[in-house]
Amino acid sequence: MAGAVSSRSCQKIRGAQIRELLDSKQSVLFDCDGVIWNGEKAVAGATDVVRLLKKRGKNVFFVTNNCTRPREKYVQKFSRLGFADVAQEDIFSSAYCSALYLRDVVKVRGKVFAIGGDGVHSELRDACVSFVEGDADDSGMSIVDCPLEPDVKAVLVGYDDRLTFLKLAKACCYLQNAECHFLATDPDPWHPLRQGRVTPGSGSLTAALETATGRKATVIGKPSRFMFECIASQFGVDPARSLMVGDRLETDILFGANCGMETLLTLTGVSTLQEAQGYVDSDAPDKKDLVPDYVVDSIADLLPLLEEDE
Amino acid sequence: MAGAVSSRSCQKIRGAQIRELLDSKQSVLFDCDGVIWNGEKAVAGATDVVRLLKKRGKNVFFVTNNCTRPREKYVQKFSRLGFADVAQEDIFSSAYCSALYLRDVVKVRGKVFAIGGDGVHSELRDACVSFVEGDADDSGMSIVDCPLEPDVKAVLVGYDDRLTFLKLAKACCYLQNAECHFLATDPDPWHPLRQGRVTPGSGSLTAALETATGRKATVIGKPSRFMFECIASQFGVDPARSLMVGDRLETDILFGANCGMETLLTLTGVSTLQEAQGYVDSDAPDKKDLVPDYVVDSIADLLPLLEEDE
Repeated sequence: MAGAVSSRSCQKIRGAQIRELLDSKQSVLFDCDGVIWNGEKAVAGATDVVRLLKKRGKNVFFVTNNCTRPREKYVQKFSRLGFADVAQEDIFSSAYCSALYLRDVVKVRGKVFAIGGDGVHSELRDACVSFVEGDADDSGMSIVDCPLEPDVKAVLVGYDDRLTFLKLAKACCYLQNAECHFLATDPDPWHPLRQGRVTPGSGSLTAALETATGRKATVIGKPSRFMFECIASQFGVDPARSLMVGDRLETDILFGANCGMETLLTLTGVSTLQEAQGYVDSDAPDKKDLVPDYVVDSIADLLPLLEEDE
Repeated sequence: MAGAVSSRSCQKIRGAQIRELLDSKQSVLFDCDGVIWNGEKAVAGATDVVRLLKKRGKNVFFVTNNCTRPREKYVQKFSRLGFADVAQEDIFSSAYCSALYLRDVVKVRGKVFAIGGDGVHSELRDACVSFVEGDADDSGMSIVDCPLEPDVKAVLVGYDDRLTFLKLAKACCYLQNAECHFLATDPDPWHPLRQGRVTPGSGSLTAALETATGRKATVIGKPSRFMFECIASQFGVDPARSLMVGDRLETDILFGANCGMETLLTLTGVSTLQEAQGYVDSDAPDKKDLVPDYVVDSIADLLPLLEEDE
């Protein structure tokens, strides 16, 4: 591990360095948004990178904090954007892992009050975790008058573009019970959208509830280790032989560090080289885990090395 | 000031101590919710306390973080609950003071994007501050598609029980402009309601936007000094001869300390004697300002002293 830490140098790599790095890994974990695609457009070269990694016998996993889609929709999106043979089992979303956490770790008895969209609801349903949707037929009602479910034992907060005040207020009421678990799919504060617009992320909605309740949510998504534990338990991957590839220092790169993986920052998404360099220069010890081991402009930079022996 | 600090002892007072305290003050500032009333019910004795303080020539002001009502509605509520002669000029709400701040301190040129209810909108209107309401006719739209006003120069966040995701997302987009001011009416994290229910406060909604934008809001309400500055500029009150009476340690009592007033905690609202004692026992120096100078069970405890010479 000493070697891994000393190499965390935010090093722009190319050519032989990339070949050496890939040769040393058995598994590659990719974040999706900002790494594999942006919106409905695959990052140039990404389909070939994934195809050739698999052809070389690497395990390829997709680890996303985006909880808006169920995994079967991710499979469709991969296919639509030209990625061949990405299977549902290779995809670990924060919604899927939240459902696993509620089922297998919390072993929740009772219902989950779920703030979120189709991704959250579908994954809970697939995992046979009983839940109530935030947006029942009482919109327009005051929190004083609206019915509350008697059997809610957990609140799960994910990105929800249909969030209402009533959902927040209901979650507050459920969380007054100290035995009601409080989970967040992911801590992402915001997301870039088209045309320079931005949208609040799950982390933003969670912050509202943390402030209102004085409690801290258990975060399931990156940088928490749990998503890696899901992959490891299903596929037996070795962190020392795994590479985490992401675009966001505070989630992807920290996740890699937390799980003992080497990390590769790609500059096609949210974080910039300047931000990474800021963490290199920081005196705060806890910022060191936000420094990626390696940096590329795009995962397309891996392509020449992967194509070499084709 | 050394004397005032050493007296900050969370002391339960009665009888002659109350008389001495009241004799030493020219102005009494009351919080409303949990102090003067709870919901639609006046605290027992509160109407007489206010009447007798005024009869003795004290200035009585009402200083509330509750931004839901315009001041004229507060006048009506005081009247409805049996308080005689409470004038609009005596009421300083966080919505009113936010409007003053935008007009007189920020001197905002352009529009304010206002998250809040009737209180916020009416006070902005009365102060001739141009604003756009969060809930325009684009509910159901995505933040990518909905129109944004070109001239928004400030975002004001207050309690809004009609909050939607789109309002939060619009505020995020406006706040991407570093020159757009970011204000919160108050930092209250939550409020108690009837039947043991709770509701998220302005501070909770503000936390969502602070997380999403990476910015800190300027807080207008207690414990910020600005509301006292509004009173002082209009009435020339002397903090050393003023008493702040409130039920919430983190807002009312800290506000009193921040403004150089002595403070009286009343136990008819949110905070408990145990919580106050917790701050007395705390080693953190910044917690000392959360310790009230004096404590009563209810402001009705002032009544015997005020009735003495009637």
